[in-house]
Amino acid sequence: MIDINRQVWLRARPDGIPQADHFALREAPIPDIAEGEMLIRNRILSVDPAMRGWIADSGTYWPRIEIGDTMRAFAAGEVVRSRHSDFAEGDMLVGLFGWQDFAAVKSAQILWRASGSGLPLSLSLGVLGLNGLTAYFGISEVCRPRAGDTVVVSTAAGGVGSAAGQIARREGCRVVGIAGGAEKVRQCLDQFGFDAAIDYKAGPIGAALAKACPQGIDGFFDNTSGAIHDAVLPLINVGARIAICGTASISSWTPWPQGPRAERHLLVKRASMQGFLTTDFAARYDEAIGALAGWVRDGSLRYREEFLDGLDKAPGSISRLYNGANDGKLLIRIS
Amino acid sequence: MIDINRQVWLRARPDGIPQADHFALREAPIPDIAEGEMLIRNRILSVDPAMRGWIADSGTYWPRIEIGDTMRAFAAGEVVRSRHSDFAEGDMLVGLFGWQDFAAVKSAQILWRASGSGLPLSLSLGVLGLNGLTAYFGISEVCRPRAGDTVVVSTAAGGVGSAAGQIARREGCRVVGIAGGAEKVRQCLDQFGFDAAIDYKAGPIGAALAKACPQGIDGFFDNTSGAIHDAVLPLINVGARIAICGTASISSWTPWPQGPRAERHLLVKRASMQGFLTTDFAARYDEAIGALAGWVRDGSLRYREEFLDGLDKAPGSISRLYNGANDGKLLIRIS
Repeated sequence: MIDINRQVWLRARPDGIPQADHFALREAPIPDIAEGEMLIRNRILSVDPAMRGWIADSGTYWPRIEIGDTMRAFAAGEVVRSRHSDFAEGDMLVGLFGWQDFAAVKSAQILWRASGSGLPLSLSLGVLGLNGLTAYFGISEVCRPRAGDTVVVSTAAGGVGSAAGQIARREGCRVVGIAGGAEKVRQCLDQFGFDAAIDYKAGPIGAALAKACPQGIDGFFDNTSGAIHDAVLPLINVGARIAICGTASISSWTPWPQGPRAERHLLVKRASMQGFLTTDFAARYDEAIGALAGWVRDGSLRYREEFLDGLDKAPGSISRLYNGANDGKLLIRIS
Repeated sequence: MIDINRQVWLRARPDGIPQADHFALREAPIPDIAEGEMLIRNRILSVDPAMRGWIADSGTYWPRIEIGDTMRAFAAGEVVRSRHSDFAEGDMLVGLFGWQDFAAVKSAQILWRASGSGLPLSLSLGVLGLNGLTAYFGISEVCRPRAGDTVVVSTAAGGVGSAAGQIARREGCRVVGIAGGAEKVRQCLDQFGFDAAIDYKAGPIGAALAKACPQGIDGFFDNTSGAIHDAVLPLINVGARIAICGTASISSWTPWPQGPRAERHLLVKRASMQGFLTTDFAARYDEAIGALAGWVRDGSLRYREEFLDGLDKAPGSISRLYNGANDGKLLIRIS
C-alpha cells in the first residue's frame, strides 16, 4: 500500500472554463480516521459539469471550493480501514471523496454502496450513479410517461439524456432526442435506440421537432432551457409534463435572461413544468439503482464511458466536457 | 307565462372591450323542445371576463360566437318543461343557457343543479359556481397548501381570487393578496380576512411582497401573469406550487410577450408551475360545491355580488368588468 495521498487542489479560480493550470497536484500524508470514519482508497474519479459551478465565484447549491482545497469530486472507492460499524474493509462505496488517492470520510459523505450489482464499478459513477438516478427520477416522477406518449429529451446523447430517453422508451413512448452535431444524433439513433433525433446545431429546430412529433409532445426532459425549451413549448399536448433538470444553454443568469412567457402554454394545455434535484430522492436510491442495473443487464439501458488514466489527468479533464473532446461519461481511473 | 323569448345577440365584433352597441335585443318565439331536451326559464345571467374572448376574432378554448348568434352565457334557471327523464319541472339548473329569457337545452349544456344548498340561487353563478370551483380545484389540486405555508393570490379581491385566498386560509396558511387599488386591498383585509394585501397599482411590488412574505412563498395562485408573476417567482421556497389560472395582465399574445425565464427558479427551488382548467374536474363538482356551500354557511367563505336588473342591462355589462365600475361578481336578474 502506498503511503502518500496525492491530491488535486484548486490553485486559481477560473474566469470561464476550468483549465489544467487552475489546479495542481500535491502530496499529503494518508489521513488518520476518527471513530465513526472510514478510510477510502479511491479507484475511479468522476468529472462532472457541476464542477465548473463548484469552483466559480458565485455559489450554487453547494458551498464554494476555496483556493487550496482539494477538489470536490464524486468517486468510487474501497474501504481500506473502518471505524464505522456499518461499513467493513472491502466495501465498495460511492461518495464525495474528492480528486485524491485516499479520503477519510464520515457516513454523511457516502451516497450509496457500489457493490452487489455484478456490473463494472465505473457504472456506479454514471448510468448506475447520479446520471442514471437523475434520469430515473426525472422520468418516473416528473415526466410520468404513459405508453404511446411522445417524450422529448434535450442533451440527448449525454449521460443523463441518453438514460432518460431509454427509460421513457422502455415505458412504450416515442422518444425524440435533441443533441448537438451529426455524431451525437447518430448515437441517439444507433446506440440509444431513440425514434428520432434532431441536431440543434444545424439551425432552428421548430420545424424538425414538429415533424418528429406528429402527435405533439407529452413529456419533455429538459437539460438546456433557452432556444430548445422555447421550441418545445408550443408543441406540448394537453396534460404535458415538463421536467426541468438543467439549464445548460444559459451561460449566465446575470443579467437574468428573457424568453417567451410559458404561462399561456401551461394554461391552455393544463400542463406542468417542474424542477427537480436527484438528491431529493435519496431515500429511493436503492430501488432506482436496482431497477437501472436490471435494465443495463437486459440490454435496454445502454451507456458510453470514456476513461482517462491517472490522477495527473484530472486537472485538464473538466475542459474536455466543454470543448467537445469527450465521448461518454468522463472518468479517471487511479487504481 | 310570457310567450316571447327576448335574446341579446352579437351585432358587431368588437375590436377591444365589448360595448353595449356591439349587441342588440330581439324577440323570438319560445323554442319547442325535442325528446331529451328541457325548456329553461332563466332567472339569473352571468357576466364574465371570458365573454370578451368568446366574441373576439381569434378563438380560445371555445368556438367563436358568430354575428347574429345569441350571446353565450352562464345562467341559472328553472326547468319549466322537460322531455328528459333526469330533470323535472321546478328543478333549478346552471348551464350555458345564454343571454335570453328561455333556452331549449340538452343535458350536455347543464353544468350542475343549483337547488339543495338552501343558499341564494345567485351563488351558483359565483362562489358556488365557476368562481368557487376554480378556486377550490386550483388551491386543493395545484397549490396543495399545508398549514403554515405562505400562499400568494393575484386578482385577490375578485370572485376567484377572494375564494382562493379564503380556502387557503382555512387550511392554516398565511395568505397574501395582490389587488389593484386601495379599495380592493381594503376588501382583501377587511372582508376576506387575508393576512396582508398589496396594491400593484401603487408601483413595483417586489419589496412589499418580500416584506409581506418573510418566510418566502409556498403557493401562488396566479390569475395575472406579467409583472406580478415575475415578482413572485424570485421569492418562492423549495417545493413551491404555482397554479396558472389566468393571464389577465397580458392584453395580447401577438407578438408573444417575453419575460424573465422561469426555469432556473423552478430548478433551484424544485418548484412546479401548472396550468389547470376547472372543467377538467367536472366529475368532482358535486363534492366541491358541497364543501363550498358548507364554508359559505359557516362564514369562512365570503363573497361579493353586484346585480343589474333586466335583460336590457346585458349589452353594456361586459364593459363594466374592465372599467372598474363593478364591485363583486356581476349578475343580471331577469326573473
